[in-house]
Amino acid sequence: MKYITPKGFLFSTVEAAVKKPGRKDVALIVSAVEAEMAGTFTTNAVKAAPVRICMKKIGSGTGQAIVVNSGNANACTGRQGTKDAQEMISSVAAAAGIDKSLVYIASTGVIGTPLPMERIRPVLGDLAKNIGSATIGEVAATIMTTDTFPKIVQKRLKLGGVNGTISAVCKGAGMIAPNMATMLCFIMTDFAVAKNTLSCVLKNAVKKSFNRITIDGDMSTNDTVLMMANGLAGNRAVTMKSADLPKFQAAIDEITYALAELVVKDGEGATKLIEVLVKGCRNEKDAEKAAFAVANSSLVKTAIYGNDANWGRIICAVGYSGIPLKEEKADIWFNNVRVVKGGLANNRDKEATAVLKEKKIRITVDLHAGKASAKVLTCDLTEEYIRINAEYRT
Amino acid sequence: MKYITPKGFLFSTVEAAVKKPGRKDVALIVSAVEAEMAGTFTTNAVKAAPVRICMKKIGSGTGQAIVVNSGNANACTGRQGTKDAQEMISSVAAAAGIDKSLVYIASTGVIGTPLPMERIRPVLGDLAKNIGSATIGEVAATIMTTDTFPKIVQKRLKLGGVNGTISAVCKGAGMIAPNMATMLCFIMTDFAVAKNTLSCVLKNAVKKSFNRITIDGDMSTNDTVLMMANGLAGNRAVTMKSADLPKFQAAIDEITYALAELVVKDGEGATKLIEVLVKGCRNEKDAEKAAFAVANSSLVKTAIYGNDANWGRIICAVGYSGIPLKEEKADIWFNNVRVVKGGLANNRDKEATAVLKEKKIRITVDLHAGKASAKVLTCDLTEEYIRINAEYRT
Repeated sequence: MKYITPKGFLFSTVEAAVKKPGRKDVALIVSAVEAEMAGTFTTNAVKAAPVRICMKKIGSGTGQAIVVNSGNANACTGRQGTKDAQEMISSVAAAAGIDKSLVYIASTGVIGTPLPMERIRPVLGDLAKNIGSATIGEVAATIMTTDTFPKIVQKRLKLGGVNGTISAVCKGAGMIAPNMATMLCFIMTDFAVAKNTLSCVLKNAVKKSFNRITIDGDMSTNDTVLMMANGLAGNRAVTMKSADLPKFQAAIDEITYALAELVVKDGEGATKLIEVLVKGCRNEKDAEKAAFAVANSSLVKTAIYGNDANWGRIICAVGYSGIPLKEEKADIWFNNVRVVKGGLANNRDKEATAVLKEKKIRITVDLHAGKASAKVLTCDLTEEYIRINAEYRT
Repeated sequence: MKYITPKGFLFSTVEAAVKKPGRKDVALIVSAVEAEMAGTFTTNAVKAAPVRICMKKIGSGTGQAIVVNSGNANACTGRQGTKDAQEMISSVAAAAGIDKSLVYIASTGVIGTPLPMERIRPVLGDLAKNIGSATIGEVAATIMTTDTFPKIVQKRLKLGGVNGTISAVCKGAGMIAPNMATMLCFIMTDFAVAKNTLSCVLKNAVKKSFNRITIDGDMSTNDTVLMMANGLAGNRAVTMKSADLPKFQAAIDEITYALAELVVKDGEGATKLIEVLVKGCRNEKDAEKAAFAVANSSLVKTAIYGNDANWGRIICAVGYSGIPLKEEKADIWFNNVRVVKGGLANNRDKEATAVLKEKKIRITVDLHAGKASAKVLTCDLTEEYIRINAEYRT
């Protein structure tokens, strides 16, 4: 992959032995100039120290750097956790010559163990001094935990006649569920975007991408999406009134959806990507509820893994999702094969079994009760998921 | 096991090749006299034909027989499903000489395939004629699907100076979740119990037993608990005002809890029983929400399977359960080992890892926010669960 990095963004990575030796585990993202900054965070009541710190900072809407470590979530670490995160911020700020109010922080990894500051502390100076020595690809690799591949999406476009770039990295793997479970994502652009507009655009994009994916139904303590816009492309800042706003929103939507899809593809032990589309609902909330019930059903996920066109488990999940349902009106498809028509078996199981061998499965449920729909991404549930998670820490 | 059957209850079982050949799959329970009858049913919006039929009948509060088949759920089978269930009821009623309004029905197994009436129809006469030929143990075995052992609990006690018996059978295995997912349970007693009292006692018992267990978070279309009290013991009928009511309630509580525990022990692929107790909550609803979040977490369940004292996943699940939470007040135990004290690691992971090798794990979470508590039973999540459910139908 050829990296196209937005103007003025520089990177550095280092090994502090937070993860197993031999893998980089602390990364730094710096913008040459102060940038507008927006963020969305986990809604879990248990929030890691870095999340709590970022949530306070993000009110300012400005930032210049993000320091991030993998291997340790710095969650459930009490006052020491906050102190450690603050120390990381201060050290990086001092070494990089940036005001510490402009330095953000994120962590991912094991919960409940204090950060190994004796190993992180000594490398932070080098991390800041060597800024520019790493590619965005190395940042993507550094933030990985049980991810099997780095996740980068990049896009060039023109806004107001000016060329600019948007690049984004993210990590996912386990504990991914509604509202962005252990998922870190950093989006950088050299376009100028007004503060409030940046925040709105990001929230809109996250709503239909990271907030519509689920791997195991678990929502983490550390989810963080941060977006920086440093304006170095030289366009007139995008505002809520710009003619270019829809184009910019579409680009961010596309990037976050592509990243969400990569996260699900790389779900722990996953062999198949599953897209659950529930349509024909009275409202979007109903559709979303039903789609999540199907996408979170272990029985549906294991059936897809086993190439079993077991649509009974799908209608059953819709049934317990809590939305009103007329069973006799429901249609269900696996890809283009309609297996249920008017609530009854359509006798196309053989064809359905054949399409289930594909790597991307689209489950469509039409309830014929209205016009609203919602789409949720998930993956199948396999023995490998169990092995990874039974042995993650030990 | 020596069976102690309440007076006047007779059984019969037969093989109709609904399941794989060589296993009985239709059973009949008959009381010699009309009995008081109570029932609770799935809250899934998709209800199997037999459930819809029983829900109508149960209003009468009386019954005399239950016909039940395994191997096919008769769910999502439309009008044909209702017709088939009615035919089973009518045939059994005619052959047994019982009014068909007094015959109840239950089914469990695959969803979406019509009952093989061509194989069931011919055996219903024999089923009714041979009543008394089977033991309660054979009934328990006949209703099994992926269960690995039959589930029977029986108890003798004295009410109002009169000896009586309560016997119960049930089946469970997969798709067990709040509100009694694919779970059939039949409770029989020769005590006399007033109609409304029977219904109240059953609802109370189910609330803290079958409605507090979860295997995979999936709630089935077929859950049915039916209870018959035929009065042949000769006691004065138990009413809401009886001095004996608490004793009777306690007995039914004990029986349903024991059955619920057996269901979870036999969860698909389970190697360990997990009891999740959340206490110190403002109210029982909060406690129940948090306990279910922990019990339904795939990450918690795989950690227990892997003997990993990964309490971070537990506090994380409590965090996303939606209840208010002061992380710094939370204590967490595995059995008697307190691994978290005041929201922080208590450095007893080694001891915790040792207790996790036991077959029964009690996870206790104390939030120190009030006096309410709730207990939910579940099991670990293993590769075997995946294998069973990926290959169930194919």
